[in-house]
Amino acid sequence: MLFHVEMTVSIPRDLDPEIAEELKRTEKARAQDLQRQGKWRHLWRVVGHYANVSIFDVESHDELHAILTALPLFPYMEIRVTPLCRHPSSIHASDQ
Amino acid sequence: MLFHVEMTVSIPRDLDPEIAEELKRTEKARAQDLQRQGKWRHLWRVVGHYANVSIFDVESHDELHAILTALPLFPYMEIRVTPLCRHPSSIHASDQ
Amino acid sequence: MLFHVEMTVSIPRDLDPEIAEELKRTEKARAQDLQRQGKWRHLWRVVGHYANVSIFDVESHDELHAILTALPLFPYMEIRVTPLCRHPSSIHASDQ
Amino acid sequence: MLFHVEMTVSIPRDLDPEIAEELKRTEKARAQDLQRQGKWRHLWRVVGHYANVSIFDVESHDELHAILTALPLFPYMEIRVTPLCRHPSSIHASDQ
Amino acid sequence: MLFHVEMTVSIPRDLDPEIAEELKRTEKARAQDLQRQGKWRHLWRVVGHYANVSIFDVESHDELHAILTALPLFPYMEIRVTPLCRHPSSIHASDQ
Amino acid sequence: MLFHVEMTVSIPRDLDPEIAEELKRTEKARAQDLQRQGKWRHLWRVVGHYANVSIFDVESHDELHAILTALPLFPYMEIRVTPLCRHPSSIHASDQ
Amino acid sequence: MLFHVEMTVSIPRDLDPEIAEELKRTEKARAQDLQRQGKWRHLWRVVGHYANVSIFDVESHDELHAILTALPLFPYMEIRVTPLCRHPSSIHASDQ
Amino acid sequence: MLFHVEMTVSIPRDLDPEIAEELKRTEKARAQDLQRQGKWRHLWRVVGHYANVSIFDVESHDELHAILTALPLFPYMEIRVTPLCRHPSSIHASDQ
Amino acid sequence: MLFHVEMTVSIPRDLDPEIAEELKRTEKARAQDLQRQGKWRHLWRVVGHYANVSIFDVESHDELHAILTALPLFPYMEIRVTPLCRHPSSIHASDQ
Amino acid sequence: MLFHVEMTVSIPRDLDPEIAEELKRTEKARAQDLQRQGKWRHLWRVVGHYANVSIFDVESHDELHAILTALPLFPYMEIRVTPLCRHPSSIHASDQ
Repeated sequence: MLFHVEMTVSIPRDLDPEIAEELKRTEKARAQDLQRQGKWRHLWRVVGHYANVSIFDVESHDELHAILTALPLFPYMEIRVTPLCRHPSSIHASDQ
Repeated sequence: MLFHVEMTVSIPRDLDPEIAEELKRTEKARAQDLQRQGKWRHLWRVVGHYANVSIFDVESHDELHAILTALPLFPYMEIRVTPLCRHPSSIHASDQ
Repeated sequence: MLFHVEMTVSIPRDLDPEIAEELKRTEKARAQDLQRQGKWRHLWRVVGHYANVSIFDVESHDELHAILTALPLFPYMEIRVTPLCRHPSSIHASDQ
Repeated sequence: MLFHVEMTVSIPRDLDPEIAEELKRTEKARAQDLQRQGKWRHLWRVVGHYANVSIFDVESHDELHAILTALPLFPYMEIRVTPLCRHPSSIHASDQ
Repeated sequence: MLFHVEMTVSIPRDLDPEIAEELKRTEKARAQDLQRQGKWRHLWRVVGHYANVSIFDVESHDELHAILTALPLFPYMEIRVTPLCRHPSSIHASDQ
Repeated sequence: MLFHVEMTVSIPRDLDPEIAEELKRTEKARAQDLQRQGKWRHLWRVVGHYANVSIFDVESHDELHAILTALPLFPYMEIRVTPLCRHPSSIHASDQ
Repeated sequence: MLFHVEMTVSIPRDLDPEIAEELKRTEKARAQDLQRQGKWRHLWRVVGHYANVSIFDVESHDELHAILTALPLFPYMEIRVTPLCRHPSSIHASDQ
Repeated sequence: MLFHVEMTVSIPRDLDPEIAEELKRTEKARAQDLQRQGKWRHLWRVVGHYANVSIFDVESHDELHAILTALPLFPYMEIRVTPLCRHPSSIHASDQ
Repeated sequence: MLFHVEMTVSIPRDLDPEIAEELKRTEKARAQDLQRQGKWRHLWRVVGHYANVSIFDVESHDELHAILTALPLFPYMEIRVTPLCRHPSSIHASDQ
Repeated sequence: MLFHVEMTVSIPRDLDPEIAEELKRTEKARAQDLQRQGKWRHLWRVVGHYANVSIFDVESHDELHAILTALPLFPYMEIRVTPLCRHPSSIHASDQ
C-alpha cells in the first residue's frame, strides 16, 4: 500500500558535527537499502529546503511506522504521512 | 524539471450534472494524454478526498502554468505547486 | 489495517429537506451495515458538533477510499484520515 | 463519560537517557494499569509519529484531569481533549 | 460537570427576517429556561461580536450534546466546547 | 468591567524546582487574594492542560494590565484577553 | 477606556447598489458623529483593503458593543477588538 | 507617511538582568525621543501583553526600517508592519 | 517608495462571461498603462494560480491605495501589501 | 526560469559575534556575486524585518537548490520558494 511522506529535517546546531555526519551517512545508506527493497519507491528533494517528498510502498501500517521511526534522522524530522490509492485516471501500472 | 502538484477538486453543487460529467471525462482524457507524453509523470488519489498528488516533468514554468490552467476542472481546483530536484540519496534514475 | 477518520457534516441550507432526510436514513443504514461487517469498528459523536470520530479496519487504501466516497453524505463532509498502528503499550487485542 | 485524547510526545534531547527510559517504563506501566481499570479504553499509535490517539472513559472531568496530569510523560506532551458522546448510528454497545 | 462553550452566530442574509426574529425569540426563551434550570450557568456577550461565552453544568456529554443541538440557532452557530474542572486555587464554591 | 482571560502556563524545564514551587505558592496566594477582592470573579482549570479560563471584573484596562503582569507566573504564561459585556438573554445579575 | 478595533468590510455582490450606497452614506455620517463625540478617536484606512484601523474611547464594554453593532455596515464586517492601556513610554497625553 | 506597527517583546530568560534593564531604559529613551520628533505618533500598551500598538509617521520606507531595526529591543521583538492612509470618513486632520 | 503586492483573483462563477471578459480587458489595459508610467514596476504570474506577484513604486500610501482599489478586478481580488526598502547587498540601482 | 524567494534570517543569540559578522560578510559577497552573474535578479529588504524578497533566474531546480543551500546564512534562514512565469499583461521584457 502506498503512502506519501514528507520529511523536514532540523539538525540541532549543537549536535556534534561528527555525529551529525555519521547520522547522515547511515540515513543515506538506510534510504538506499529501502529503495533497493522497493519499500521506498520515490525520493525527491524539495527545492531550497532540507526536506524530501517520498512515496513508500509497504505491507502494513506497522511496517511503515517501524521504517520511519528507525531512520537515523527520525529524532530531528517533522513528518507528514498521507495514505494514497490508485487514481482512476492513472495509466501507469507503477502508480499503485 | 520536476514539480510536486496537489489538486483538490470542489465541484459546485449547482453545476449541471451533465456538464460536470463532461468536464470529468475531458479531464480524464487530458490527464491520460499528458501522462502518455511524459509530462504528468505520476498521479495518485488521496484516500478519502476528491484530490490527487501528482508529479509533473515539464520544460519550463510557462509550460506547467499552461498545462494546469488548461485542465477542464481547473476552475474548481485548489492547487499547490512545489518545485522538486534530485535527492542525493535517490537510486532511481527516474526520480529526476 | 486501522484508520482514524473524522467526518464533519455541513448539509447545505437549501437542500430539499426530504432529500436531506433520505440521505441521513441511507447514511445511517450504510454506517450500520459497515459496522456489522467489521469495517467501521467504532463510531462516536463529537459533543456539540454534527461530526463523528471513527475507527475503520479495512483491507486496503482502495477499500477505505471506496467506502468513504460512497457514503451518502460524502459530498457534504469534510474528512480527515489518519493511519493508525498497534501501540506497544496497548493491552487490548482489539486495538489492532 | 468518553473523551477522545491525542497525545504527542517530545522528549527533550538533553534529558538524561536513563531518566527518559525510566519515564517510558513507568508511563507504559501506568497506561496498562489504566487500561486494566477500564479508564483508558483504547490506545493506538499514529503512524510515523511519537503520538497516540486514545479513548478514555472516566467518572468526571476532575478524574480525567488527574489521570492525564499524573502521566510520567505529561510534562513532555502536547494534549488535545475532545468530549465524545453516543452516536445515534452506532450499533456497538461499547461505543458509549 | 462544567463546560466552557463559545458560540458564534452567523444568520444567513437571505433568511426570512420574520423567521430570524422567531428563532431569536425562541433561542432567548430556551436560554433563559436552561439558566433557570441551572444547566446554563453563565452567559456573556463577546464585545463587538454576535457571539457568547458560556458555562454549562450538565449531567453527561449526551445531555450537553442534546442541549446544544436543540438550540434554535444551532444550524447557524460555530461552536467550541472545552471541558473544565475545579481549579485548585479557586475559592468560589460555585466554580465547580 | 468584565474580561475573559485564558492563561496557559509553561514553566521552563531548567527553572530551579524550589523557585518554581515558590512561584506557584505566591501565584496561588495572589489569585485567592484577587478572588476575595472580587477582581478575579471566576477561575476554572482546563481539563488536561496547565491552563485556566478566568473572568475578571476590574475598574479599568490599566488595572487589568497591572494585575496580569504582576502575577508571579506571568513571565511563563501565554495570555488571551477578550472583553465581555452583558448578554441580553442572561438572567443572572452576576453575569455583568 | 481605549480599544483598538480593526474592521474589514465585505459587501455582498448581490446587495442592491442603492442600498449599499445608502449604507455607506449612513456609515460615514455615523462614523463622523462618533468622532465628533470623541468616542471614535482615530480612523485610518488600511492600504489596499476595504478595512480600517480605529481607536475607540468609551465608557464601558456595553457602550463599545452598542456602538459597533449599531454601525450600518456591521452585518458585513469582520471585527477584531483589542483592549489598550497607557504605555509607560508614551509622552502623549492623548494616548490614554 | 503612516504605518501601523505592532511590537511584541520576548526577552530571553537567560539575558543578564542588568543588560535587560539597560536595554529597556535605552528603548524608553529612544521611544520618547522619536515621539518628540513626531516620528512615533502614537504608542499604546496591549492589555495583558508585553506588546504595543504604534503609529509611525516617516519620510520613507528606508527611514522606518532604520528606526525599527535600531531599537534596542529589536532583536527580541516580533514586528508586524501595516501601511495606512487617509480614511475618507476621518474628520481628524491628524489622522494622516 | 516600493511595495510588494500579491493579488489572487477569484471571479465568481455566476458573473456574466461578457462582463468578466470586459473586466479582464480593462484590467490588462490599466496594468499596462501603470507599467508605462513606472508605477507598476514588475508583474509576474504565479505558476498554477490566477495570481500575480508585483512590485509597485509610488509617491505615497494614498496613491497605492487609489491604484489598487481602482483596478477593475479589485472586487474579486485578495491582496497582500508588504512595504519594501533598499537591501544593503543589492547591486542593482533599480532595486530601490 | 524565475523564482520568487523569501528569506527570513534568525541568527541564534549565542552565535559568536565574530562568526556572525563573518557569515554576513560572506553572505553579502556571495549575494553580490550571484547578482553580477544574473542569477539573483532582484533583492529587496522587507521593512522592519531581517528578511528579503528576491527574484532568482536559474537554469534548473538543481541550480536553485545548490545556490540557496550554499548561502552562508542558509542554516539560519526560513525560506519560501514560489515558481513564477511570464504574466500576459507584463510589458517589461525583463519580467521573464
